[in-house]
Amino acid sequence: MRELTVDLGERSYPIYIGEGLLREAASYFEKCGLSKRSPLLIVTDEHVGPRYLPALEATLRKAGYQTVGITLPSGEGSKSLAVFESVITKALEAGLDRHSAVVALGGGVVGDLAGYVAAAYMRGIRFVQIPTTILAHDSSVGGKVAVNHPLAKNIIGAFHQPEMVLYDLETLQTLPARQVSAGLAEVVKHGLIWDASFVDWIDGNAGKLRSLDPEALGYALHKGCSVKAAVVSQDERENDVRAILNLGHTIGHALEAVAGYGEMLHGEAISIGMVGAARIGVELGAPQEVYEVTKRVLAKCGLPVRLPSHFDTDAVMDAMMHDKKFKEGRMVYIVPTAIGQVEIDKNMSADRVRRMVEQLKEEAEV
Amino acid sequence: MRELTVDLGERSYPIYIGEGLLREAASYFEKCGLSKRSPLLIVTDEHVGPRYLPALEATLRKAGYQTVGITLPSGEGSKSLAVFESVITKALEAGLDRHSAVVALGGGVVGDLAGYVAAAYMRGIRFVQIPTTILAHDSSVGGKVAVNHPLAKNIIGAFHQPEMVLYDLETLQTLPARQVSAGLAEVVKHGLIWDASFVDWIDGNAGKLRSLDPEALGYALHKGCSVKAAVVSQDERENDVRAILNLGHTIGHALEAVAGYGEMLHGEAISIGMVGAARIGVELGAPQEVYEVTKRVLAKCGLPVRLPSHFDTDAVMDAMMHDKKFKEGRMVYIVPTAIGQVEIDKNMSADRVRRMVEQLKEEAEV
Repeated sequence: MRELTVDLGERSYPIYIGEGLLREAASYFEKCGLSKRSPLLIVTDEHVGPRYLPALEATLRKAGYQTVGITLPSGEGSKSLAVFESVITKALEAGLDRHSAVVALGGGVVGDLAGYVAAAYMRGIRFVQIPTTILAHDSSVGGKVAVNHPLAKNIIGAFHQPEMVLYDLETLQTLPARQVSAGLAEVVKHGLIWDASFVDWIDGNAGKLRSLDPEALGYALHKGCSVKAAVVSQDERENDVRAILNLGHTIGHALEAVAGYGEMLHGEAISIGMVGAARIGVELGAPQEVYEVTKRVLAKCGLPVRLPSHFDTDAVMDAMMHDKKFKEGRMVYIVPTAIGQVEIDKNMSADRVRRMVEQLKEEAEV
Repeated sequence: MRELTVDLGERSYPIYIGEGLLREAASYFEKCGLSKRSPLLIVTDEHVGPRYLPALEATLRKAGYQTVGITLPSGEGSKSLAVFESVITKALEAGLDRHSAVVALGGGVVGDLAGYVAAAYMRGIRFVQIPTTILAHDSSVGGKVAVNHPLAKNIIGAFHQPEMVLYDLETLQTLPARQVSAGLAEVVKHGLIWDASFVDWIDGNAGKLRSLDPEALGYALHKGCSVKAAVVSQDERENDVRAILNLGHTIGHALEAVAGYGEMLHGEAISIGMVGAARIGVELGAPQEVYEVTKRVLAKCGLPVRLPSHFDTDAVMDAMMHDKKFKEGRMVYIVPTAIGQVEIDKNMSADRVRRMVEQLKEEAEV
């Protein structure tokens, strides 16, 4: 079992990563000081729930916890205000009080939605993250929670830190290959923004990661969470440095929106976005290897590095205009300067970005 | 012009109270550092909007601010998730960004709803309170914002402090007499929990307050806001002492719910609640004058001190069970110990409260 701490003063919390942690969930809940006299609401989805919810509830109840579960439809569609309201209704009916906690058992959608319920219910109650995807190693750390509005993703939300993150590697074993690769995109990102030696390690171990080798996976997720924790500790509410976590995301979000949410996975979209950002980085003076290594490592992880040519450049640019990082005709853009290092360009020209989108369609496959 | 500060470290903010402040709104917005390059969204309702919105927008625009207004139906019904979503839609369409602010121009409903929009939009943007009722001297200070769920009031919310509170006494001159009295209930409450000499002053000046004498009103609202600010500064997130602000509210909320929201005004409900709390206080050893003075001062302010006999005691008790201050069969109850002093009883018996509800129906009019 690996453990690390997200250091946020009185809002600090632990991340536990290891095999079989779900079976020992009750002892972690106790360690965390969660009340047995107030009900816990476990939020999950149709994919994850049937597999893990009954055992988790049984374990917790055996230890004296009161639990109520709610299973939502899988997919981004559940990050809506309507589903949010239905979970609040469930919380009220179950009698959740100020000492209760909301537990997110699932991937990023479940974590974001359940976290926003915890942030809003009675103006904020406790919250536990139990991520069951690789991608969620990113979203479960850092306290950003939200739901979508039909006009914009993640526009209704809060910063609400969990009490702990409980990461059971066994839950990852049933992930489909495409989801594994998509999840690795954020792992690679954490290397690219912070730690060249970690990028080098992924370069040599991508095969093990894709085949879900527990030792390699534990190491990589611990590393990825550590980078996320270090960045968030410096800037909890994204006033400055936290923005580097958006490497590849400005284009990535636009590609997801244009493709239709769910068509292109988040990890796939930011993979293409990171290749584009690396191209811009090299144009602006970074060594050529920034582009080459970025592209090679992402491809080794099974991720796309080329924008399918049917994407309309105008549509992608329009989608970016709606992104909340856009302001007054210029963009905030995260640009690599070396492997393991990026800078925040607050004045990126839309023209340069447009040229890059065009180039991404010409990108050679690796 | 009177000024005071709510002292919350880096979230501290000023409250300005005076006549004609709306006409000078632009200079207060500038002093507050609000951006002219990002649109402001002014939220108001059908009562207040037609009277003050056009002039406010004109003043702000003349000074270079970009403004967009949204006028909601008046009344508690607007504190819903559906209306919340419609305001978020307006914010997106108007292009509000991270540097924008939401401005609440109205009473408590507008302030609570607009404040929750500001708390949630992009995970939190700036927020200005321009209260236009006496009651809102209470709700506009302290950062509690929320919307209602069909099953519970204020259950979906946040703590989100404004950048400033701009209180123009001229906007109070058109309030109907019943609203004036209802607003004074929270003024009296601030005296009862904190400041015996202020209660004494109200006792002698209730007539002036009811006739909206500007000097008396300015003094009383400054005093009321000062008490609120002092309490909130000590306990922003209601972990302990802030609970004293709930004097009269446990019963008050239940009465509002049973009467049907809007039938009995909030101030009227907590007035009856404060008489009940004073009764319990005396039963538990407080001097008899606590009950007598409480009842007399509230009556002088034109407030009800007797529970209409058609209220069903069971229904009132049931409504209290749903209140979020209720836990494990016992209640948290704010009990007066002297004029200007209360204590937090975390173990109040439901039986005693039930007897008090019955007694409130027998209360003699003053």
